[in-house]
Amino acid sequence: MSNYGELTPVQREELLCEELKTFKKLKKKCISVDMTRGRPSKEQLEIAMPMLKEAGGYNYITEAGDARNYGELAGIKSARELFAELFEVKSDEVIVFDGSSLDIMYNLVQFAMQFGVLGGVPWNKLEKVKFICPAPGYDRHFSICENFGIEMITVPMKEDGPDMNLVELLVSNDESVKGMWCVPKYSNPTGAVYSDKTVARIANLKPAAKDFRVFWDNAYMVHGLYANDDKLKNIFDLTKKTDNANMVYELASTSKITFAGSGVAALATSAENVADLLKKMFFKQINPNKVNQVMHVNFLKNKDNVKRIMSLHADILRPKFELLETRLKDAFGDCQEVKWSTPKGGYFVSLDVKECAKRVVALAAEAGVKFTAAGSTYPYMQDDSDSNIRIAPSVPSLAEMDFAIDVLVCAIKIALFEKR
Amino acid sequence: MSNYGELTPVQREELLCEELKTFKKLKKKCISVDMTRGRPSKEQLEIAMPMLKEAGGYNYITEAGDARNYGELAGIKSARELFAELFEVKSDEVIVFDGSSLDIMYNLVQFAMQFGVLGGVPWNKLEKVKFICPAPGYDRHFSICENFGIEMITVPMKEDGPDMNLVELLVSNDESVKGMWCVPKYSNPTGAVYSDKTVARIANLKPAAKDFRVFWDNAYMVHGLYANDDKLKNIFDLTKKTDNANMVYELASTSKITFAGSGVAALATSAENVADLLKKMFFKQINPNKVNQVMHVNFLKNKDNVKRIMSLHADILRPKFELLETRLKDAFGDCQEVKWSTPKGGYFVSLDVKECAKRVVALAAEAGVKFTAAGSTYPYMQDDSDSNIRIAPSVPSLAEMDFAIDVLVCAIKIALFEKR
Repeated sequence: MSNYGELTPVQREELLCEELKTFKKLKKKCISVDMTRGRPSKEQLEIAMPMLKEAGGYNYITEAGDARNYGELAGIKSARELFAELFEVKSDEVIVFDGSSLDIMYNLVQFAMQFGVLGGVPWNKLEKVKFICPAPGYDRHFSICENFGIEMITVPMKEDGPDMNLVELLVSNDESVKGMWCVPKYSNPTGAVYSDKTVARIANLKPAAKDFRVFWDNAYMVHGLYANDDKLKNIFDLTKKTDNANMVYELASTSKITFAGSGVAALATSAENVADLLKKMFFKQINPNKVNQVMHVNFLKNKDNVKRIMSLHADILRPKFELLETRLKDAFGDCQEVKWSTPKGGYFVSLDVKECAKRVVALAAEAGVKFTAAGSTYPYMQDDSDSNIRIAPSVPSLAEMDFAIDVLVCAIKIALFEKR
Repeated sequence: MSNYGELTPVQREELLCEELKTFKKLKKKCISVDMTRGRPSKEQLEIAMPMLKEAGGYNYITEAGDARNYGELAGIKSARELFAELFEVKSDEVIVFDGSSLDIMYNLVQFAMQFGVLGGVPWNKLEKVKFICPAPGYDRHFSICENFGIEMITVPMKEDGPDMNLVELLVSNDESVKGMWCVPKYSNPTGAVYSDKTVARIANLKPAAKDFRVFWDNAYMVHGLYANDDKLKNIFDLTKKTDNANMVYELASTSKITFAGSGVAALATSAENVADLLKKMFFKQINPNKVNQVMHVNFLKNKDNVKRIMSLHADILRPKFELLETRLKDAFGDCQEVKWSTPKGGYFVSLDVKECAKRVVALAAEAGVKFTAAGSTYPYMQDDSDSNIRIAPSVPSLAEMDFAIDVLVCAIKIALFEKR
């Protein structure tokens, strides 16, 4: 389809009629497809079943004692070592938790609100706390801010990361700017990978607030779709040379490596932060689920083996991303009003349909295909241009995807033709 | 040993000399025994190994979908039903979490501090928050209070529960009294079981604070040592008839049923509280480890089977408790200065050695036997009479126990003879 702006009103009316007919037919098929969230498919979940099958045979006795018993608040040594290898840091810079990295991030913010960061003033006692939110971004980051009444400052997300001119300006001039959310690799939802320059500029920020923290949510660190995986610069290598040695919290989990929400999640940060956090965590927990950690260490083994496992995931995901790309290109290759990302990893494709995202999502829902609510990828749900839609192609089968894309393409065309 | 007060100074000196010789001999054996914490023994941990051996064969597809995938913040239905049966409540009054009940309690307090309880004023905004702490009690309850700057009011723990006259007075007259810790069955450390009358008096409290909450930490709900298990009155049956329908948070975990800190933990409370908590938890987590919940439901099955499993634990624990009882009786049966509890369940024996607990614990440590620091069972570590020692007999073997008791008996005698 070429630009709808070039069509005459009559042509547009004719095409709209045609699409409405197609829409009716699609609706009649009564097929339901859910593309709202970045969930692994059943086929992907099967990949980790050997971990459960062999769970009875693993050795639960570690150097530190019996992993089935109390102790080791920071997680078992071998799990810390595994994540240290993945994060490319030292194992005393890692804490391994239960399954949810969202829970880690929430707790880090709550600790800061209640107790302050490394001896700083508790954020609860400040008149205002602000976070920088590159957008489009991950809705669950934004909802943590909303939950704590943290003001969100939207910063445009570009192909090589957030708009760093703006970030530098905000961070260095305003002491109430205390945090920044980042999904630095295969960003949710655009799939962007932060460039080396962007990572370096973040590492070298000059925050007005001493307790400014970067939440480096590396959720898709090993989630490339192709063999030649994108390489993200190790931010700790850079911060260690600066005053920002304690500035970064890096997060990851095995939710999309083993089981979603039933894996293990981990934090990498400075040894000073680790020590401080363990003091705070003491009051909260005796230890994480170490039996699950033993299972994960035995199954995942090391970085090379994780890569091997992730290539199995990629083999399942790749055709779905490629089908979406091909079909969108066929339908809107020449159309200025429709743009989308072509990520080489992660769980999302970011689609921009100029000023009609809400209408497209509503139409698709009417025909049985659910997308995340339009606006979700922006702080306060405020997508001023009403353009962005997050597409999660992981769960549906290829056949379901085909139907879902029929609906999506048709919905977009209707929404565009309707506009006058 | 009869009362040391009845001995002449010379007799006392002679006996002290003798005990010091014995102490020297015990010390020379260089045996280390740790009786500090209520941990299951290796033998007990083996009981749950079939759960891991069969993990690969369990059905992870539930009514609500695939338990290996995201969703079900409140835990899987079958796990909620299992805990509902154990708690004797409805399943919509239960949330099943990851492994740590300490974590649940901490989060409940943190939610109240940050956001308030059921629309009430956040406790952070109040000048003072106080909790009632029956003592001797569980040190980790007290440390949560210390962490949040909550003032602890010590209330004597009696054989049928806390001193209720005092509790009623405190709760009904002071709006800043917001909470109360209880281990109602096989209390930590005395082993006391709250009488029906005590439970009824708690259920019928008239708190000045609308957001007063009872933390009913039923950690030892199925942890009897004998077939004729003590029966604790169901507090919810009583609160439902009063204005206190939302007053109680009941906690439990499988830390001493399956794996310590690697099991599942659960909360029972009113459906109104459950709904409110799920709204708060939404920002924190997508779901608990549901794979682990499926494993636990398949292994634990139902209340009768849990009882069967717990009888296996009791068979291992009982001889240790009985050995301690017999040996203490032999040594101090007639001695007014040494008293101890004879619990019919739980994980602890509470020992009172008049005004010399610190000395006894220090002497025992010198001879290789570690007990929890004297004072730990009191808020702010303040055991004014320096008498209480918590003994955890679960981990050592019977032979190690025998040595540990030799040391304990000798240490007590030395401490008593030294006193003038």
